[in-house]
Amino acid sequence: MAPMNTTTALTNHQVRLARRPVGASTRDDWSFTSEPAQQPAEGAILVKTLALSLDPAMRGWMNEGKSYIPPVAIGEVMRAGGVGQVVESKNAQYKAGDLVYGSLGVQEYLTLPEDQFRRNGLFKIDQRIGSVTQWLNVLGMPGMTAYFGLLDVGQPKPGDTVVVSGAAGAVGQTVGQLAKIKGCRVVGIAGGQAKCDWVVNELGFDACIDYKAGNVRAGLKEHCPKGVDVYFDNVGGDILDDVLTRIGRGARIVICGAISQYNNTTAVQGPKNYMSLLVNRARMEGMVVFDYADRYPVAIAELAGYLKDGRMKSREDVVQGLENFPEALGKLFSGGNFGKLVLQVADA
Amino acid sequence: MAPMNTTTALTNHQVRLARRPVGASTRDDWSFTSEPAQQPAEGAILVKTLALSLDPAMRGWMNEGKSYIPPVAIGEVMRAGGVGQVVESKNAQYKAGDLVYGSLGVQEYLTLPEDQFRRNGLFKIDQRIGSVTQWLNVLGMPGMTAYFGLLDVGQPKPGDTVVVSGAAGAVGQTVGQLAKIKGCRVVGIAGGQAKCDWVVNELGFDACIDYKAGNVRAGLKEHCPKGVDVYFDNVGGDILDDVLTRIGRGARIVICGAISQYNNTTAVQGPKNYMSLLVNRARMEGMVVFDYADRYPVAIAELAGYLKDGRMKSREDVVQGLENFPEALGKLFSGGNFGKLVLQVADA
Repeated sequence: MAPMNTTTALTNHQVRLARRPVGASTRDDWSFTSEPAQQPAEGAILVKTLALSLDPAMRGWMNEGKSYIPPVAIGEVMRAGGVGQVVESKNAQYKAGDLVYGSLGVQEYLTLPEDQFRRNGLFKIDQRIGSVTQWLNVLGMPGMTAYFGLLDVGQPKPGDTVVVSGAAGAVGQTVGQLAKIKGCRVVGIAGGQAKCDWVVNELGFDACIDYKAGNVRAGLKEHCPKGVDVYFDNVGGDILDDVLTRIGRGARIVICGAISQYNNTTAVQGPKNYMSLLVNRARMEGMVVFDYADRYPVAIAELAGYLKDGRMKSREDVVQGLENFPEALGKLFSGGNFGKLVLQVADA
Repeated sequence: MAPMNTTTALTNHQVRLARRPVGASTRDDWSFTSEPAQQPAEGAILVKTLALSLDPAMRGWMNEGKSYIPPVAIGEVMRAGGVGQVVESKNAQYKAGDLVYGSLGVQEYLTLPEDQFRRNGLFKIDQRIGSVTQWLNVLGMPGMTAYFGLLDVGQPKPGDTVVVSGAAGAVGQTVGQLAKIKGCRVVGIAGGQAKCDWVVNELGFDACIDYKAGNVRAGLKEHCPKGVDVYFDNVGGDILDDVLTRIGRGARIVICGAISQYNNTTAVQGPKNYMSLLVNRARMEGMVVFDYADRYPVAIAELAGYLKDGRMKSREDVVQGLENFPEALGKLFSGGNFGKLVLQVADA
């Protein structure tokens, strides 16, 4: 922990959006800047970034246009949630040394006045409940997304067959394990044998289909003999269409993301089998995790319990160094990450 | 009404599916047969077809493959709901002269044993409540589809903006009027000025967008300034994509049909803007009217009340003659019909 009197000497390295990417983003889409960390005024805190969450949604924030939150402006520090440590506090709620979760941005330091605590989703985290990286995974936004997307939108019943794509990813790993805990049959879809083996052997999924190895539709037919009751979709594209051919009566498809489509330079591939919704009286519903903010504490308590009693595991893929942000982000879209992707910026 | 002792002399003209069409169906897809009407055995009734309902769903029944009901087999009399008159009864529930609704098929006569009454959805209709053609429209399957699709799946609240495509068609006209009765702002989408004028001036829709005249998206922007809360989709294709760009938070899209896609020889056009469901936390849900059969009487009673007090109107487009079935069916897909399309087969 930095001594309090060194604050003014701190240099804050930052990653800013330099231009809007066309297709996959590259290092040239970013600018690397540095400026002195701001001294906190009365009521404010200065936070040092420890680890940042890298998420598929980031690609969407880089685009112009209306979405569920405004895009990141050109020249602005890239938006990112992360865990940081309070290095100087002029606010009674926090003291130096506290670990916090919040929207910190892709930078080393953030000075936050009290009136922005809520907007930045700031809260104290407890390392006795989970590690820094777990607070970015199962106890963080991916875990919250999995919890509310699966339970509130997907509404699984014991005995239901739940399919989740991106099964070894941040959201998918928690969706599948939670569905198992709730008494469902769980089939993952992931890229590569290693990921498939892990979700079956380590996380206890009933089966996993390696979409890189071949026929997803045949795999669904084999592993979902009674049809799919809940599909938690992180990927969109052909896999969504494949699952649509196997849904059962009254199925619920949770639209959480469409990572296969985020780098498109042409139009998004719409699900051409969507009329299966009619045939099967099924629904497809979108969700945004921020809507459930008031209920995060309940979800965190439940998930922390499963981590503690060993019923839930987590896996993070940690990349070191702020300067590696562009390449680290790219791993998400190539399927190169194995587990929740985290950018480690500093040690506590 | 035919005297009962002439039954054995009756000739039953029929339209059978001769082959599965590729793209739009033509006269060559049908065979025209005749055979003696069957004398009813004990417990059975002989029904004379008066009028048949022609519906977009028929195109789907002509295709091979799994759907919500089995396809019509090659050589089988084409499936069709209709109103008929009992000409001979050996069943205590019905007497000669009764008017019935049921799955009669595209033929002049149907002999139905008692154990098939339920399967064919047979029930007596009352002309004091509605005309024969109204029993195929607002009081029939289109009306039931509109009622349960709008109210159960769409769940409109007073003040909501409801958009319906195929607005002058069988389902659309009832959806729009019912939504007005429930206190919603209603915007139709229809093909041509005449249909648009009719739904606005006669049925009381707040606005109607003529998709043949041009820009649906601009029309939606103008007429749905607060966004679309409920979209009742009968057409799919580009119009579904246009509406997806204008839905509001928590919107409900009712997937009732996709008439723009039924004659496709290539894959169905999936909604490329479906990620709007995520951004807007909205859902898209399919429905099949048969699921609500137990509640038809409630819906019929409510809709009959609106017909009686003048709050609801109906329009049917009646084509004469069983032999004109192929061309009549084609009108549905060219937008050639204006109102519920009915094939008049005989007079009572």
